[in-house]
Amino acid sequence: MWVGNAREAVDFYVAAFGATVLHRVGEGDDLVVQLAVGEAAFWVAPASAALKRLDPRALGGATSRTLLVVDDPDAVSAQAVRAGATETAPVADEHGWRVGRIVDPFGHEWEIGRPLGDCSSG
Amino acid sequence: MWVGNAREAVDFYVAAFGATVLHRVGEGDDLVVQLAVGEAAFWVAPASAALKRLDPRALGGATSRTLLVVDDPDAVSAQAVRAGATETAPVADEHGWRVGRIVDPFGHEWEIGRPLGDCSSG
Repeated sequence: MWVGNAREAVDFYVAAFGATVLHRVGEGDDLVVQLAVGEAAFWVAPASAALKRLDPRALGGATSRTLLVVDDPDAVSAQAVRAGATETAPVADEHGWRVGRIVDPFGHEWEIGRPLGDCSSG
Repeated sequence: MWVGNAREAVDFYVAAFGATVLHRVGEGDDLVVQLAVGEAAFWVAPASAALKRLDPRALGGATSRTLLVVDDPDAVSAQAVRAGATETAPVADEHGWRVGRIVDPFGHEWEIGRPLGDCSSG
């Protein structure tokens, strides 16, 4: 996902989601980082108008929302809010999921949840 | 991901990626559809300025890019182009991956690839 400040965003995702850094290449405006949260992996890289990589914080919205499946959505959502995210929907039971939504400080919206009835804690 | 026309987008992803429909709820501006491509699943729903769900086709860019891991990136990329996508990077060997990029008719950019050296065809 494209962000206004990749270095700060990586620090946020580590603090908010307990993400681990899988790859880190380049510096500053060329910094590209791959992060993992459990089995999920995603990349963070700088927004660039020239490359049509739009900054959702600047736009006040994003063109997609990311579903992050975790064992404990309540804990991860609370941790993300403590790290600076804004809760847009509290974690609740909905359509067979335990799920809530946040917007992170870089403008990306996340749905954080797990299917109900799945007691694995891999 | 948010799209200008969810019904058309679903038809496109089925034709382009061989996606299957897992869930389909609502109609028209309320249509929400979950699609699967192999082990990957994603949702398509209408863009809405009021809900800050931005339309990447209208913006001429997106706030993220999606990596789609498939067994045969060359075939899937070619199928997507035949279905109406625009190739932005031809499929090639790069950083240990066989990978290319397309922008779909709804403004979302996809990276389509697989790790090299992985010969599974599950």
